[in-house]
Amino acid sequence: MADEMQWDRVIMGVDPGTNVMGYGVIGIKGKRLSMIAAGVVTLSKFPDHYLKLRHIYERTLALVVGYLPDELAIEAPFFGKNVQSMLKLGRAQGVAIAAALSRDVPVAEYEPRKIKMAITGTGGASKEQVRTMIEHQLGVTEDVLPPELDATDALGAALCHYYETERDRMIASSKGSAKIKLPSSRGKSSWKDFVEKNPDRIKKI
Amino acid sequence: MADEMQWDRVIMGVDPGTNVMGYGVIGIKGKRLSMIAAGVVTLSKFPDHYLKLRHIYERTLALVVGYLPDELAIEAPFFGKNVQSMLKLGRAQGVAIAAALSRDVPVAEYEPRKIKMAITGTGGASKEQVRTMIEHQLGVTEDVLPPELDATDALGAALCHYYETERDRMIASSKGSAKIKLPSSRGKSSWKDFVEKNPDRIKKI
Repeated sequence: MADEMQWDRVIMGVDPGTNVMGYGVIGIKGKRLSMIAAGVVTLSKFPDHYLKLRHIYERTLALVVGYLPDELAIEAPFFGKNVQSMLKLGRAQGVAIAAALSRDVPVAEYEPRKIKMAITGTGGASKEQVRTMIEHQLGVTEDVLPPELDATDALGAALCHYYETERDRMIASSKGSAKIKLPSSRGKSSWKDFVEKNPDRIKKI
Repeated sequence: MADEMQWDRVIMGVDPGTNVMGYGVIGIKGKRLSMIAAGVVTLSKFPDHYLKLRHIYERTLALVVGYLPDELAIEAPFFGKNVQSMLKLGRAQGVAIAAALSRDVPVAEYEPRKIKMAITGTGGASKEQVRTMIEHQLGVTEDVLPPELDATDALGAALCHYYETERDRMIASSKGSAKIKLPSSRGKSSWKDFVEKNPDRIKKI
């Protein structure tokens, strides 16, 4: 959607795993954020570990070539069950990173907790809370967003990278000024604010 | 050396790490094994993790494009100190694997113990024993081999891949025959045989 637009900046987020890789591309025009694409790449169909890695590399490269992102943001957990699973995760991340670096796209990584914090204002938010906030912040309805949580996680990484870099930029440009308006106080609202303003959007359990 | 030769098969070995990546390329002509190239890529000079990964990717790709190996063999430890170091190792392996896969070069991996076993006949061999056997099997003198053990580890991975695949090929081609001559009984000799035949080459401690 909206791919005819001339964006100021395009950020691609990926959430690479050994069974599924989520991806999400956002476009920024002025202060408006839009979803350009989001989805998942299924890897469980490949019996061989190297075929999986090859598929992650090729699909990430195709996304980079297709959407020409200015930056790549990776959701990167720093802790895992065991050394074996971390080695496999590291390899999946490595091939996705290589695809971006091969096209001179800089890479940034964010821990899941940091992404949740940037999007909902709380590091302990549920995946569903993150999803609702992403819909809100990208101005899309629930049915536009792909159903897979890996895809929203990837969009979350892209959004988090935007907020983090925007924040750094504002701090840098307001050096010496007493008034610093951080992104969280303009445009972006926390989960708490969202619940107060949209009581009808919250599912009662 | 000997790069004017028309090889039957070229195997490249890599030992990717986060500070140093060793590489070694061997050429096979009939039953003769030769060293084509070996060395190390130093990564400790790069302060940034992504610059390291980028350098591993670019150098591996340059080696693949330069030596056109038919296969890539990776020395891949399956156990590490902790999940953090395994994630980093996995990423380093991942970008090296991506460089090979991007040029349709199939990848195989071998644990350090398996490599030692294939080259010396014992999984508990020292790095120096492995090195002496590699010199012997590739028919090079000590001064030709690069001094870094990461380079010999990479040559070891390439040699191990050769022995393993050659073994499989011989078993496959001799199906139904009672006489199977495995590579270890022709050409390749174990550390024990080597010591018996070359008492002058062994340093007394």
